[in-house]
Amino acid sequence: MDIRLRIEQALEAAVSAGETQEAPPGLAAAIRYAVFPAGHRIRPRILLGVAAACGDDAPEVSDAAAAAIELLHCASLAHDDLPAFDGASTRRGKPSLHRAYGEPLAVLTGDALIVMAFETLARGAGGRPERLGPLVAAVGRAVGTPGGICAGQAWEGEAKVDLSAYQRAKTGALFAGAAAAGAIAAGRVGEPWMAFGNGLGEAYQVADDICDLIADPEVIGKPVGQDQAHARPNAARELGLEGAKKRLATLMRRAVESIPDCPGRDGLCAMVMAEGGKILPKGAVRHAA
Amino acid sequence: MDIRLRIEQALEAAVSAGETQEAPPGLAAAIRYAVFPAGHRIRPRILLGVAAACGDDAPEVSDAAAAAIELLHCASLAHDDLPAFDGASTRRGKPSLHRAYGEPLAVLTGDALIVMAFETLARGAGGRPERLGPLVAAVGRAVGTPGGICAGQAWEGEAKVDLSAYQRAKTGALFAGAAAAGAIAAGRVGEPWMAFGNGLGEAYQVADDICDLIADPEVIGKPVGQDQAHARPNAARELGLEGAKKRLATLMRRAVESIPDCPGRDGLCAMVMAEGGKILPKGAVRHAA
Repeated sequence: MDIRLRIEQALEAAVSAGETQEAPPGLAAAIRYAVFPAGHRIRPRILLGVAAACGDDAPEVSDAAAAAIELLHCASLAHDDLPAFDGASTRRGKPSLHRAYGEPLAVLTGDALIVMAFETLARGAGGRPERLGPLVAAVGRAVGTPGGICAGQAWEGEAKVDLSAYQRAKTGALFAGAAAAGAIAAGRVGEPWMAFGNGLGEAYQVADDICDLIADPEVIGKPVGQDQAHARPNAARELGLEGAKKRLATLMRRAVESIPDCPGRDGLCAMVMAEGGKILPKGAVRHAA
Repeated sequence: MDIRLRIEQALEAAVSAGETQEAPPGLAAAIRYAVFPAGHRIRPRILLGVAAACGDDAPEVSDAAAAAIELLHCASLAHDDLPAFDGASTRRGKPSLHRAYGEPLAVLTGDALIVMAFETLARGAGGRPERLGPLVAAVGRAVGTPGGICAGQAWEGEAKVDLSAYQRAKTGALFAGAAAAGAIAAGRVGEPWMAFGNGLGEAYQVADDICDLIADPEVIGKPVGQDQAHARPNAARELGLEGAKKRLATLMRRAVESIPDCPGRDGLCAMVMAEGGKILPKGAVRHAA
């Protein structure tokens, strides 16, 4: 089955499990709004790519893990967009969650999505209980503290920032978690895959920095210039546009080189290189040199 | 080992696992502030009481589950106290989390505590992998949506409230989850324990309503009169003080009657009745009739 279809079906199954008669209607609607329609779904695509390269012998586990990783990403967007953080008014081309549903439901939606992610893992791994512990550990490490995305966001409020810990936690951790979870879902050890995920995360961060500097907000569906507005580091501002593009290419090549030995190594390399060509969204660049 | 000591040690282990050099110092401090010093710890005490009644053959699992339930309770307090919800200025006798650490860290602390709860479960159940899935499911159901505490909080923003779904989700669900998780941690099925947990939760809600109406805020460490201020239902206002006390006694008796057959049934009954006598904190009542 097509990877994008698998991801959307797994997300649909996870979200609709929470849409019983018992659910408060506003929260149910806000959760659906936060998850659909699809963004890039880049993290679950990496996860399923790694699972496929490792044999993907239990697709019900890898589907659940892919959904969990994306639910957690959606949770982080719901909370990062809150007025207490970026106060972003748009996301994925529509009003941000707190603009559409108010601040209380934006907080609760993020919370509910985090819980839903772990419930989804447990449901998916029902037939492979020995994989659940390592999955929860890999996913938890990617999103919590000390080194996950909660920690990454918290670094932005520190007076003295450990820049490498900040960047690793803010972006790299969830990519590393996606790669590790893909391997674990397919019955492999997750650790050796973290360097690959981290590398992709670094590359994605540079691409995101380029977009934040020069993209058309209408095309990418969210405000630009946020790094400067919030005094955050930005590779494209530091290296210049051409320097940042070169850095992006180097990081993509290094990520590919770090792919561990596995049955589907060649296929995964090809997929990553193809994705690399699309990492800067078409038409996103407003006045590229 | 004393139940309170087990709980504090399990919480200390969970919290300190996030306090590595990698952690942003503000978030690490805020997490510790949200968890310590101890509140009543009533939910993990119920969990360990049920586990003991079921034989408690794997204390490392029940300790982890007890810590997880309390971490999730602390997460819900951190978020419920936010200005978007109650805007409470005090909690457990000290400034509420957002007053002490600011709103961004209060949001992130809640998020990180939710993640930490599931990581703690996975770590504790490492040697009993077959118990992890049911534990994650029972705990997830208690805190997420459609019927957990996220849903309970979301009902407060609905124009038309399903009152029984609201009360079950806001308070009952986490007590039911604690009871079920205690049984699962000891190798039993969780479902039959949910009525007992729900009953205790209902009783606790009535006790909380009595406190909110007539307690001394200095003694209970949080503001009173919140139900009226936020137009929430309150049993003591509806039934009168004496009526509410009678209702509390009835609910406690019913909860005890619903304890399933298990090796330590008598001990658990005695524990619950003893706790019942203490459910209204000593000196909490300011001008009881």
